[in-house]
Amino acid sequence: MVRIMSARENILCVGLCCLDIVSLVSHFPKEDTDQRCLEQRWQRGGNAANNSTVLGLLGAKAAFLGTIADSHEKRFLLDDFAKYGVNTEKVVVCKGCECSTSFVILSRASASRTIIHSNKNLPELSVDDFAQVDLTPYQWIHFEGRNVANVAQMIKLVREHNKGLPQGEFITTSVEIEKAKPELEALIPLVDVVFVSKDFAVFKGYSNMAETLEGVKAMAHPGAVVVCPWGEEGASACQGSEVMVCSPAFPPANVVDTLGAGDTFNAATIFALAHGSSLEDSIRFGCRIAGAKVGVIGWEPLRGLLGSGTLLLKKEASLAT
Amino acid sequence: MVRIMSARENILCVGLCCLDIVSLVSHFPKEDTDQRCLEQRWQRGGNAANNSTVLGLLGAKAAFLGTIADSHEKRFLLDDFAKYGVNTEKVVVCKGCECSTSFVILSRASASRTIIHSNKNLPELSVDDFAQVDLTPYQWIHFEGRNVANVAQMIKLVREHNKGLPQGEFITTSVEIEKAKPELEALIPLVDVVFVSKDFAVFKGYSNMAETLEGVKAMAHPGAVVVCPWGEEGASACQGSEVMVCSPAFPPANVVDTLGAGDTFNAATIFALAHGSSLEDSIRFGCRIAGAKVGVIGWEPLRGLLGSGTLLLKKEASLAT
Repeated sequence: MVRIMSARENILCVGLCCLDIVSLVSHFPKEDTDQRCLEQRWQRGGNAANNSTVLGLLGAKAAFLGTIADSHEKRFLLDDFAKYGVNTEKVVVCKGCECSTSFVILSRASASRTIIHSNKNLPELSVDDFAQVDLTPYQWIHFEGRNVANVAQMIKLVREHNKGLPQGEFITTSVEIEKAKPELEALIPLVDVVFVSKDFAVFKGYSNMAETLEGVKAMAHPGAVVVCPWGEEGASACQGSEVMVCSPAFPPANVVDTLGAGDTFNAATIFALAHGSSLEDSIRFGCRIAGAKVGVIGWEPLRGLLGSGTLLLKKEASLAT
Repeated sequence: MVRIMSARENILCVGLCCLDIVSLVSHFPKEDTDQRCLEQRWQRGGNAANNSTVLGLLGAKAAFLGTIADSHEKRFLLDDFAKYGVNTEKVVVCKGCECSTSFVILSRASASRTIIHSNKNLPELSVDDFAQVDLTPYQWIHFEGRNVANVAQMIKLVREHNKGLPQGEFITTSVEIEKAKPELEALIPLVDVVFVSKDFAVFKGYSNMAETLEGVKAMAHPGAVVVCPWGEEGASACQGSEVMVCSPAFPPANVVDTLGAGDTFNAATIFALAHGSSLEDSIRFGCRIAGAKVGVIGWEPLRGLLGSGTLLLKKEASLAT
């Protein structure tokens, strides 16, 4: 169904890395009240940064490309990438900038995650930054849907690169359309795999996964894969004229931390597709790993749960047959 | 009405100093959404720390006493005290501790301030710490209502100190009962001036300022002053058997930042009382300065608005007559 992947397994995630200051509260605050949080922690965040964490945990050779402020948070962020085996050699360090920060309120009562994001002066990755990266090692390049004009140019550079290669060595491109922003639509026709969030779907007026896939497929290039996760309802996906495939969600007994759940789904689905799994197996794998994530706090406990990503994939395939 | 104050004008504020990470948002977030803030800033916070800022702005010789973590935020916090002329010589620096932090969400739409507080391991001020402070320079010592067992002992030390002095040189003690916590009640009978917040009043089942004053007066020592600010309704106060006095609020044309409004009221009222103003003039002065505060963002713009606190007090007295 999805094109055959080469033996390379380097996956590059392009997008934002920020500091998440996570406050765990017993319940989401009522406006104009004071409360004490149960716990506060620093966590590396940003969609692409999270994608690379999950890919690293699954055992992929993952790399992150994005800008990072030359502030006192830099050491924490780079050390944390290293903890998950994510290559950050290509990261663009920006002098005199402040770290992009998200304040995250995690509610123990509802497992919701509410985010207030702040970005003072950290520049976005430029096309020049991207053009300086040797693309040869990569099998897959995933782009976070932001910084649209530049990212569109970057995707075009990847397509230029592909032109000189035999089809089996093409770099696959994917993009995540997460935020409810109309300008993100411009990225949909450019890539091989499109991830569309429920937020974006609702913003576009789609009321379920099937409608979303139909609508986004019409914008995507022919033959592109469109994937749509829908929270507790699981995920669906389609490719070209083939029939839509679906997976249920795999919620854990206790949902404790949904921060990064979408990033986990996307990364795990990419991991499976990049290893040649079928589209149906891949989104079920994505749902299963996302389900494991929301059952634990942060990323570290996933290490023990996931073990080897390729072994898990084989298990997934055998469960499906 | 209030006892005559001496010529000393050193006012010591005892309580918490923390880092406020303030995010200005267009509207208070709905649970489980993402949004970008309009602005994010660091600000020194904590009730007693804020009290001392306002006293410094009014021109009092203000000092702060509390614990402070020996973390990288320390320099920021101490420099910021210095900016407002607040003496921090007595501050207790705690090695190996993390800075107490409040995440504050300011809504531009409603001017609300919602606080999520985190305190990992910063110890409270001990009775020993307090006992080492020479109380002689102080005319007034204000305690933030927290750390109840220790603060009760500290107040007793001040009363011991007063025993050896002529009545005109007594150190006046005050306490702010702000949080809806039953254990704070134990501090009410110990001091000369009690500030009771609307939050605490509502928690006690009082439905307006008059009820609150009656109820708290019964717990306070005979002759004590009880002051109760009530947001947009202004403030009321009473002393012993004398009739209750009231002040309206003085809201600015645009309310933009209510963070620290209560601290401002308390500090300005203390400033007025410490300068011998009548109880009625003092709470009206408190309401007026708090009204000025909520019309500006942060503390710095108050500098120009306030000018000399003693001149403002004279103006207040002449307006009243």
